[in-house]
Amino acid sequence: MAVYTEVSDEELGAFVSSYDVGELWSYKGIAEGVENTNYLIHTANGPYILTLYEKRVRPEELPFFLDLMDHLASSGIKCPTPVRDREGKMLRRLAGRPAAIVTFLEGLWIRRPHVEHCAELGKHLAKFHLAGQSFGQGRKNNLSVQGWRPLFEACGPKTDEIADNLQREISDELAFLEANWPNGLPAGIIHADLFPDNVFFLGPEISGLIDFYFACTDMLAFDIAICLNAWCFESDNSFNITKARALLASYTGVRRLDDDEFELLPILARGAALRFLLTRVYDWLNANDGALVRPKDPIEYLRKLRFHRTVASTREYGLEKA
Amino acid sequence: MAVYTEVSDEELGAFVSSYDVGELWSYKGIAEGVENTNYLIHTANGPYILTLYEKRVRPEELPFFLDLMDHLASSGIKCPTPVRDREGKMLRRLAGRPAAIVTFLEGLWIRRPHVEHCAELGKHLAKFHLAGQSFGQGRKNNLSVQGWRPLFEACGPKTDEIADNLQREISDELAFLEANWPNGLPAGIIHADLFPDNVFFLGPEISGLIDFYFACTDMLAFDIAICLNAWCFESDNSFNITKARALLASYTGVRRLDDDEFELLPILARGAALRFLLTRVYDWLNANDGALVRPKDPIEYLRKLRFHRTVASTREYGLEKA
Repeated sequence: MAVYTEVSDEELGAFVSSYDVGELWSYKGIAEGVENTNYLIHTANGPYILTLYEKRVRPEELPFFLDLMDHLASSGIKCPTPVRDREGKMLRRLAGRPAAIVTFLEGLWIRRPHVEHCAELGKHLAKFHLAGQSFGQGRKNNLSVQGWRPLFEACGPKTDEIADNLQREISDELAFLEANWPNGLPAGIIHADLFPDNVFFLGPEISGLIDFYFACTDMLAFDIAICLNAWCFESDNSFNITKARALLASYTGVRRLDDDEFELLPILARGAALRFLLTRVYDWLNANDGALVRPKDPIEYLRKLRFHRTVASTREYGLEKA
Repeated sequence: MAVYTEVSDEELGAFVSSYDVGELWSYKGIAEGVENTNYLIHTANGPYILTLYEKRVRPEELPFFLDLMDHLASSGIKCPTPVRDREGKMLRRLAGRPAAIVTFLEGLWIRRPHVEHCAELGKHLAKFHLAGQSFGQGRKNNLSVQGWRPLFEACGPKTDEIADNLQREISDELAFLEANWPNGLPAGIIHADLFPDNVFFLGPEISGLIDFYFACTDMLAFDIAICLNAWCFESDNSFNITKARALLASYTGVRRLDDDEFELLPILARGAALRFLLTRVYDWLNANDGALVRPKDPIEYLRKLRFHRTVASTREYGLEKA
């Protein structure tokens, strides 16, 4: 939660007048979002989100993300649509930062998703994957298997400050996944961070997906694995098979899974758990006391990883291929 | 800038359904406001502000503040209007805190007020003072002359960490003001914190006054003195007579000043400067490193105080009685 970059009324007024969105009526810094500064602005045309991209985002990657949102929105995916200025540009600069205005999506994110939310998610995830197939650009996933060892090494022996023998446990898991990580599965644009806080609902229906700043090219089933981890565990870290079935059934109702994709879900889920375990360990060890953002608990993802290690086949989750 | 209290979608949905404002469409924590947690919520009826009152606010004083806003709004003052729930209550509880919903005011606060903004302010300040006259309640100003010495003593010798001999300088000023502080001037409800960030503009016009949580009963001219300090100094701490004239002329166009009020402005301005100097010194010395709010610079108000000490009469500001 943070506004990192303050913007004055004069700067913002001038900035907004470059767009055809009407007069600026108000703006409020939003105390959400870890990576960037977000303002909710009201103009004569309605509400928008203004994002100022902070240091963790690489400026050269911003055209990819904005083009992707533009492509998705025009393909019928409910997501923030970048607004073009009068010159047709989606990316400008404000207060010394790259900046963009996107449409505002009404909706709430669900703190405790129910089975119905998981079903709704599966459908929209599959539609998102299909829409991504016609996007002409790609981006390497820096947080897939090749990225995990550098992250693990950057954490080093201090990893054991979080849990006894955690470094050893991660090392073993990493070696296993490096040796057994699948390839050749259907690939395309994945969201790669589709946690509940990035999915808005109005009533029982999804009103939009947000935060595409981890989107990249990878195996589509890896995105399913990320969602199984983020949506189908209870707060006591037990795996809710009913939610997983609902997610998978609604996904496959839109996009059929290959046999390989289905069979390899347990190892993809282990990889997905390790990916978030590693970034959470790293963030935990590198949090500074003055930070505005509280690091997320790594142990949650250690528990999920351990669970998936006990599963030999996708059927052991209680899941069946549609 | 802070959201101190997190509210879940379920809690907030249930809370909002107690009001006749339509379905909850979205809510965003606002990274502004020092004292309380504020959410900008969109419902089917439009935007509102939800405030959760944090520890610095005394719960027993909340009815005064909400009644005041209710009275002001019904008296034609542009300000947030508390929304009553279906039982007619303005004050409820949410997430363990006292909570209220008020109407949302579109508008921007002006980082660098011009003369025209000061003129607009003077008019609205006077209207606010007149509207307050018919409010049936009162509240002691804890930050008037009787409150300054306890605050000064709580700061203690560490005060000199901020500037050489600051403790001595404040001590002398305090003794002078205690001996010479006016009484008997026209009194009523004052805002007591009408800084630029509490005044919203849409174009050249004020769209609303906000943040009444320092409002109290005191000399009306003390409120003018607070505004002269907050609006009429340049960033180099020079006093802009043109702005002060504009503020005062538009104020007196709505509410005439007594001779005493006019003559005593220099000492009221000294007191107003000391009041903010003291709270800023206190906050500076008591800021903890983990705080989400950066304390404001005390030196700015030391410079303002020193300026007012050089002024023997209101005419020396370049001001004349209307």
